[in-house]
Order: sequence, then structure tokens, then C-alpha cells
Amino acid sequence: MFISRRAKEIQASPIRKLKPFADEARKKGIHIFHLNIGDPDIPTPEPVIRAFHQYNGPILGYGPSQGFEELRQAIADYFVGYGIELTADNVLITIGGSEAIHFSFSVVADPGDEIIIPEPFYTNYNGYATFADVRIVPLPLKVEDGFRLPPAGQIEALITPRTRAILLCSPNNPTGTVYTEEELQRVVELVKKHDLFLIGDEVYKEFVYDGLQHKSILEFKEIEDRVIVVDSISKRFSCCGARIGAIITRNEEIYQAVLKFAQARLCPPSVEQLAALAAYRMGRDYFRPIRTEYQRRRDVLYEGLRSIPGVFLRKPQGAFYVICRLPVKDSEHFAQWMLTDFSLNGKTVMVAPGPGFYATPGRGQDEVRIAYVLKEEDLVEAIEILRQSLEKYRKLFG
Amino acid sequence: MFISRRAKEIQASPIRKLKPFADEARKKGIHIFHLNIGDPDIPTPEPVIRAFHQYNGPILGYGPSQGFEELRQAIADYFVGYGIELTADNVLITIGGSEAIHFSFSVVADPGDEIIIPEPFYTNYNGYATFADVRIVPLPLKVEDGFRLPPAGQIEALITPRTRAILLCSPNNPTGTVYTEEELQRVVELVKKHDLFLIGDEVYKEFVYDGLQHKSILEFKEIEDRVIVVDSISKRFSCCGARIGAIITRNEEIYQAVLKFAQARLCPPSVEQLAALAAYRMGRDYFRPIRTEYQRRRDVLYEGLRSIPGVFLRKPQGAFYVICRLPVKDSEHFAQWMLTDFSLNGKTVMVAPGPGFYATPGRGQDEVRIAYVLKEEDLVEAIEILRQSLEKYRKLFG
Repeated sequence: MFISRRAKEIQASPIRKLKPFADEARKKGIHIFHLNIGDPDIPTPEPVIRAFHQYNGPILGYGPSQGFEELRQAIADYFVGYGIELTADNVLITIGGSEAIHFSFSVVADPGDEIIIPEPFYTNYNGYATFADVRIVPLPLKVEDGFRLPPAGQIEALITPRTRAILLCSPNNPTGTVYTEEELQRVVELVKKHDLFLIGDEVYKEFVYDGLQHKSILEFKEIEDRVIVVDSISKRFSCCGARIGAIITRNEEIYQAVLKFAQARLCPPSVEQLAALAAYRMGRDYFRPIRTEYQRRRDVLYEGLRSIPGVFLRKPQGAFYVICRLPVKDSEHFAQWMLTDFSLNGKTVMVAPGPGFYATPGRGQDEVRIAYVLKEEDLVEAIEILRQSLEKYRKLFG
Repeated sequence: MFISRRAKEIQASPIRKLKPFADEARKKGIHIFHLNIGDPDIPTPEPVIRAFHQYNGPILGYGPSQGFEELRQAIADYFVGYGIELTADNVLITIGGSEAIHFSFSVVADPGDEIIIPEPFYTNYNGYATFADVRIVPLPLKVEDGFRLPPAGQIEALITPRTRAILLCSPNNPTGTVYTEEELQRVVELVKKHDLFLIGDEVYKEFVYDGLQHKSILEFKEIEDRVIVVDSISKRFSCCGARIGAIITRNEEIYQAVLKFAQARLCPPSVEQLAALAAYRMGRDYFRPIRTEYQRRRDVLYEGLRSIPGVFLRKPQGAFYVICRLPVKDSEHFAQWMLTDFSLNGKTVMVAPGPGFYATPGRGQDEVRIAYVLKEEDLVEAIEILRQSLEKYRKLFG
């Protein structure tokens, strides 16, 4: 029976692919430390939970397709708080950052068009590229360089007549890299020169460490009509299950086009928007202890990992992930083996194999992504498990 | 600056297009009876509201991409209650019926492929067709025939090598027609003969009147692997703002492909799924008084409309819409005029112009869709306004 090409081609989530092995391990009574997913363990803030409790009906009707004005205003205000000029009319509420990605791809590109994305990259870009029939052109970055952007010439070499946009994720999932103003400026020049859009995935904006300031692509006024930012409350407020995100653009034509896509799906969930509003109303102090907590975990993880023989990584500066190189030939096999054949005191670790984050075949095979969304003592134990499992694995498989 | 072809082509919601004129009317203090949208006025059931109140965190994390198992089971059970064999594994939770439409189109068709849909049809199919780059081939139905399906030959004449599916919406939005078993069988034969999928939009399943039984395409066992049903709680439980729908299919390959699309957007909203679960747990008695209420409104509307000179319609049997022919040449102009230039005792009526529900240019110009989601006394008043406005309009514009 016929099934569409895109349905065949769209990748199954590489992160969720190991799930059956994890289920098996759990059935055997093994405790798994999840370093494989970025589901924050920070409790959802009280005001968000309270917003659900305060919902009073009487009719849970459709809201506006662009989202509630109060929430759009609150998000604009949040950016204004960082010195970024925005109005509610620059903000369109989406159903998670996921929908914002989907809309962005669809509005800048037609089937067969190209978007350049530094790799490794967030794996769901692949899904949406297939869904929207857009081609991702990977810009290969290296763990040795801390996944920093290469000189402009190397990026420019990838631009073709079908290139429509460059996408930058900063702070980066999966690498933890935070691009400097100078790196961003390099891309801004190319975007101007080649008449492209710059899509920014900045959902980890709050998660920058060592006193760094996050630089948003919205701050580059010279290309303000070329900028589309993908945003989400999922990580910012530990609300992954709320599915509230946003598209932010000062380009009125793009906004209106996105609004038409948004009208087709009617509206984002209403009560969850009220919950998001409550989250934004908490103010920025909310983030301070959380940032401190993640920075401490980052330090524990970084020091722990680099003390393991054969493991290589640069210190990540943001988000809560790092891509590191392991002394293994096939990180998918290693990750699976840790679930099926290894445990230490009845516990093991789940990591996300590197190849899922690359578009270039063969890349990432000796790498894994590790998320530090566990509390410190669990992280310490997980690192010890990783150390001993690698020692055993190398004896078995060389 | 470049903007994608699909962004240019996707239609702005024709239903929402009159909104600025409605806003103007409201500013002048005019009360508007909304016969233009299908936002039910039945209060959201108490258990649904209570589910929000009972949500307790602590972390609003990601759920499974296919939705919570309890909800998938509850939906399967709901269909089993109608004698339709289903398991939780046949049900995938979507973000509204909208996403179910989008996934259905994308999984059966590639860019340029065709889906046959009887017209007039639900206007958002257009949006998703453009979004998914799929071509809708309209099967023209007529108000004189009560929008019943034509003989098989007329449908078959539209099938080409690029046809992938036929979509039937029953009870129908916007016509109110409920297809008979014999009509459905006609399409089932064609689907078998030409190796197609049959997509069923059955979100108005509960809204059938005069003791009619809704026949689902899931009941045709002979094509069970060709059937994809689009479902939603929006109208069923007055929960439009919850954005919870489902795709239902017994075809395992299609299910797995849809799951990959679903993984790209991670998961449906979590708390809203708990709310949906509470709705399904109410049991079927919940629908009885609501059905009675809508049937009464349908009667009031039908008798009222056909008493207006020059208005033509057949009695609708389901959903809460009807397409009727008005004695006007341009229903878009008429609908706008009612907002800008007409009022009766400070009140007017908003209707949805016919052309928005047609893909064939020029069709529906003397038709409007009327939704009966107002209580009886308001409907009576709205009909009187419609009667007098038509009288005046015909004097002015002939």
C-alpha cells in the first residue's frame, strides 16, 4: 500500500530509539540515570501550577490564532528587560518551540530549498525538515574546537541559489556552546550579503554560565527584518508538557504569513497560555538560583567526565548538554550495551548516541550527548558508572 | 525579500477575514449574533474543569509522543461503546483535530499528490493542503440535493494516478449532511478498486438528530487498513481551547509513520490530556441532553430560514451548521454589509460567506454557512435580523 515518501523518510526520534532497551533494563530492576534527555528536574514554578487551579471556564473556547495578547505582551516585555525592543505584535504564540521551528522552515523555504545548520544539531530539526520537505545543509563543527563557528569562508562555501536561511541555536543543544557577538556578526554579514533569513533557536537563553551574557540575534538591528527567533517556555520554566512556544519577528510580512499557518491550526492551548503568563509574571529573579544550580552541575559533570581516560570534551558554557567524545568506535552500540549488559550496584546510565545529532553520515560515531538535568549526587554516581562501564566495554570490544 | 510560495498561497482564514468589520461594529455599540463560527456555547463539563484544578505537578514534563496511554484507551473504549473494535494502539493523540488532519495529509500524500474532498468543505483543509503541499480535488455537491454524494461514476471521474485518498466529513461541516451507509459504501468500493486511503473527519459524531445513527468509516472492515479517522474533543465536550484530538487507524504502518511525525513535535499538552480523560470518563449519557438541545435549535433555525423569501436549504441532519442559499449575488459583500451598514435595535448578525468553503472558483457566491451555536431565543432574534436585512439589502442592491 502507498505511504508517502516523507513518511518513510522522516527519522524516528534517535533519542527515543533506545527506549525498549531501557524498558527491559527497568523490568530487570535496574535503576537508570537519564543523561539522555533534556527533561529538567527543576519543579514547575508554583504560579504555573496555580494558574491551572484558577482556571474557571465556563467555556474552554478557541483563543486567537496568534495567542492571547497578554501573553504576547509579557513575552515582549521579557525581551525588553534584556534591552531588546519588541512589541506584542512581534510575538506569535506557538504550540511549543516545535511548532515555531515548523512554521519558520515553512515560511522561509519551499520544498527542495535549503537551510544551513551547524552540526551537531538538535535532532528534531531533521523531523521538521522532512515534514516541510526542506533540505538541511550541515555546517560541520568539531569537538576539538568546542563546536565554535568556522571562518566565514567555510560557511559561505555552503550557500547555493536554493539557500534560504541559516539557523543558529545558542546556547546550543546539543553542544552547550554559546556563540560570541563576533561569531554571530560573521553570520549576520553573510545573511545580508546573500539575502537570507537568520533563524535563531534561543530557547536556552537563560542557561548561560560563568557570568556570560547571552547575545540574541534580535540585537542585530542591521538585519532586523531577516531575523526569526524560535522561543519556548519548556526549559525556561520547567514546563515541557505545556507546549507553549513563540515565533518572534519584526518582519511584518513574515509575521502575517506565519499567522496564516497559525490560523489553519486555530489556536494554541488556552489554559496553558494562562500558565505561561503566570510564569513570565514571576520576573527574572526566578532564574538566578536555577542558573547557579545548573552551573554547579555543569562543573561536576565537566570535571568528572574529563577525569575518565579517553574522554574528550570542552567546557560547555550554556544550555544543559555537552557533546563529548568517548573511547569507543560505535556510541550507539555502547549506549545500548550499557542498558542490556552493564550495571553497577543495580544502576546504569542512558546517554544519547552522537550520530542522531548529525546529518553527515558517519559523523558522531564516537560521541554522545550528555544532559545534566540530574541533581549533583546523582550526577556523581552516573559519572562513576560511566567510568567503570567504559573500562569494561573497552576490555570487551577494544 | 524572499518568502516561500506556500506562505504566499496559504489562505487567510475566510471565516476570520470579516473580523475587522465586526470589531468596528462592536465599537459602535452594535451587538453581534455570531452565526459565523462553530464555537459551542455549551459550558465545558465540570469534570474537565476539575481536572485542571486537580493537576499537581510537581514537574510538567514531556509525555509520550503518542499521548498518554489512559487517554488512548479511553478513546478506544468510547468507540467500542459504539460497536467499533479498537485498541489503545490504534489511537494516537494529536494537538487538536487540526494536527490530525495535517498528519493524515502528510502520511498519505507527497507534494503534488491529490486528495478528493466533497465541496463545500471545512475551510482549514485548504490551509493544511497548502502547508503539506497537497492538492485538494473538489467533488462538487449541490444545495438542491442536500449535499448528498453523487453516483460513483462522478466520483471516479476525479481519480488520477496521483490520487492518494478520499476525505469524507460526516456529520458534515459546513453542510450538516450525514452520509448514509449506502453513500459510504459507494466510496468504500472506489477506495478498494483504486488502492486509496479513506480519511474520515468524524469530529461531530455525537451531533446527529432525528434518531439517526452515525455510521463511521471504521465500521467497514473490508477496508480497515485503508481507514484513517480524524477525531477531536473540541466540539464533543465543548473544549475547543484544549487542543486535544486523535488519529485513529488500524493500519500499523500508517500508525508508525504518524508516530514519527508526532515525535518531531515531542508530545501533546499534558494537563489538557488529563482534562480530556476526565471528559471521556463521563460516559455517553452526557451527550443526550446536548443532542436534544441542538436538535431543537436546528428545528428553530431550519423553520426560520425557510420562511424567509428567497432562502433555500435542506434540513441538516447533523453537526451544527447548514449551508443555505440566499437571494444575493455576492454573499461576501452581504456579510460585510450586515456588519458595516445594518442593524436592528442595535443588533446584527455575522455569517460565514460561502466561497470560503469551496475550492472551485465562483462556487458558493450566493451561499452562507450558518452555525446554530446560540440558545433558542437568540437564534429567533438572529433569524428576524437576517429576514429584515435581506429585505433591505435586496432593495438596495437588487
